Amino acid sequence: MQRPLAVTLGEPAGIGPELLARLWRERTAHGLAPFVWIAPPALAARRLPDGPLVAVERAGEAAEAFEAGIPVLWPTEAAESARADPARLEPGRPDPAFAPVVSASIAAAVALARRHEVAGLVTLPIHKAVLAAGGFSFPGHTEYLAHLAGVRPGDVAMMFVLDDLRVVPLTIHCPLAEVPGRITPALLARRIGATVRALVHDFGIPAPRIAVAGLNPHAGEGGLMGREEADVIAPVLARLREQEGMDLVGPLPADSLFAAPSRSRFDAIVAMYHDQALIPVKTLDFARAVNVTLGLPFVRTSPDHGTALELVGTGRADPGSLLEALRLAAALARRRAARGAAPARVRGEG
Amino acid sequence: MQRPLAVTLGEPAGIGPELLARLWRERTAHGLAPFVWIAPPALAARRLPDGPLVAVERAGEAAEAFEAGIPVLWPTEAAESARADPARLEPGRPDPAFAPVVSASIAAAVALARRHEVAGLVTLPIHKAVLAAGGFSFPGHTEYLAHLAGVRPGDVAMMFVLDDLRVVPLTIHCPLAEVPGRITPALLARRIGATVRALVHDFGIPAPRIAVAGLNPHAGEGGLMGREEADVIAPVLARLREQEGMDLVGPLPADSLFAAPSRSRFDAIVAMYHDQALIPVKTLDFARAVNVTLGLPFVRTSPDHGTALELVGTGRADPGSLLEALRLAAALARRRAARGAAPARVRGEG
Repeated sequence: MQRPLAVTLGEPAGIGPELLARLWRERTAHGLAPFVWIAPPALAARRLPDGPLVAVERAGEAAEAFEAGIPVLWPTEAAESARADPARLEPGRPDPAFAPVVSASIAAAVALARRHEVAGLVTLPIHKAVLAAGGFSFPGHTEYLAHLAGVRPGDVAMMFVLDDLRVVPLTIHCPLAEVPGRITPALLARRIGATVRALVHDFGIPAPRIAVAGLNPHAGEGGLMGREEADVIAPVLARLREQEGMDLVGPLPADSLFAAPSRSRFDAIVAMYHDQALIPVKTLDFARAVNVTLGLPFVRTSPDHGTALELVGTGRADPGSLLEALRLAAALARRRAARGAAPARVRGEG
Repeated sequence: MQRPLAVTLGEPAGIGPELLARLWRERTAHGLAPFVWIAPPALAARRLPDGPLVAVERAGEAAEAFEAGIPVLWPTEAAESARADPARLEPGRPDPAFAPVVSASIAAAVALARRHEVAGLVTLPIHKAVLAAGGFSFPGHTEYLAHLAGVRPGDVAMMFVLDDLRVVPLTIHCPLAEVPGRITPALLARRIGATVRALVHDFGIPAPRIAVAGLNPHAGEGGLMGREEADVIAPVLARLREQEGMDLVGPLPADSLFAAPSRSRFDAIVAMYHDQALIPVKTLDFARAVNVTLGLPFVRTSPDHGTALELVGTGRADPGSLLEALRLAAALARRRAARGAAPARVRGEG
């Protein structure tokens, strides 16, 4: 029996549900693996009146139901949260009243993944401010997923994937002025370790080669333009090479690192901060980048865009990123399954 | 009489001369405007034994000589510097003995430009460490050019050009940790002003629309991830819009700013630091980006690469960036000439 991917509800007024429906209609052309949408059936029907939706009672029914419509599952343990009246839902206008059902969908998907009833998670975009107004107390998906999975927030990491380009930022949502102070040997070792493990276990690359970007222009140019490379980054790389046998290159100047002749030499690139990681990915292809969370005991991908409220109902939103998120989650999940094991518990995680 | 572009000697042992010779051979296919190489004839002949080289005595002879060979000019005022024995020159092995002739070539080219004998400057790459070892006391080309032109170093700025993408960094060669402190209203106004003037006067865009990147992730996301956008950048943009009538958009999140649907909306983008400006340019096309110096009283472009010593003599170096530098210098010079004026002195410069 094929386990489906669990797709979370996401912001019900946002772009996610209609992109999901569009991809379901194009499922054959895209060769999509079956998924199940974790949503209250009445709310799903309100958001996607043309469906077709097929209510299922267990994830195990999804693969068969997938040919007839989008399988919709709302597990018993989540039922209590679905009290907001679906008739309130207006596409394009998020309502904090739905915050409990949005977060309950994420929790239910995690529970299904931890019981191995689904192959992995694909999360539809949420609207953080509306969730917060509705009582959701986590900064975003990643922190909530770490909490649900019992993983320390510092042990999960984002990876941005665009075809063969995989980029893991060391730091994410902090002011640029705080970045230099956050580049510590411990954080470097943790992020590089998580990257290596993900490449080996989930991407099937037995001996990955990883480039590490410098922080400063020209990677400091021998200390002329900053000392973090010489004082912090290079010694950590030397130690990880020697003690862990990792194939690490760097610290390299970030401006040329993502150029075509360079980036193709590496299985992944560890960047120092948000924009250093994301500028190259989004500059190359805004619409197809995918976000993967490393360090969780299950596969999780998400499209690299927001709720795009201004595009809801227009048909102009690009489903490319969600498509790639579904494809990548399926590929990662197949590789985990092929290892014939429960998702690996790896050192420093979980 | 067509004024040629002056091409400086550059590092004589580096990649520059052979790329120049290759482009001269392909001049018809590329539709290249005439240039004159500012080099001692004996040294030029040693570096490019197959030439063909045509010694000229005045820049005015270059356009006619250009069909027969690469015009080589070594003005009287520079002659004294050419004392190092050309027989010492070994391609691929820079020698500090040539430092005086490398810098004299730059000075001579500037003198020709200031006397309007050449249409503009294209500088071949220099080797900073070797120049410094030979007694050259400026950090690089830009500072030396500003000195020769009598312009304050803070008033010149780099612009990186790749087709229609033009990016001006606010700060360049400083440690990342110093960037936040350098983002001042004065510097922002100066860089944005220099960008507007260059677009109007040199690029022929009468009412340019300029995007300004934020410093922090998501341009600070309303202060959640840094306050420089709200406290410094946004007020400067508001003032410049109101008082100077500039068409400025921003501060915008840098990660999506350089994506195709976004970057095409602007005539230029002002970035906050080196890698924020250069990652998108080099990621899109490593081999064709060109560097333009804004704020000088003459046109100056340069290829966006170094001396590439390891590629000297291999024939594998890509002449694309030098080609684009020659093309862009010619286009900018034509526009200045069409204004029928000596290079404009604009407020705050010179």
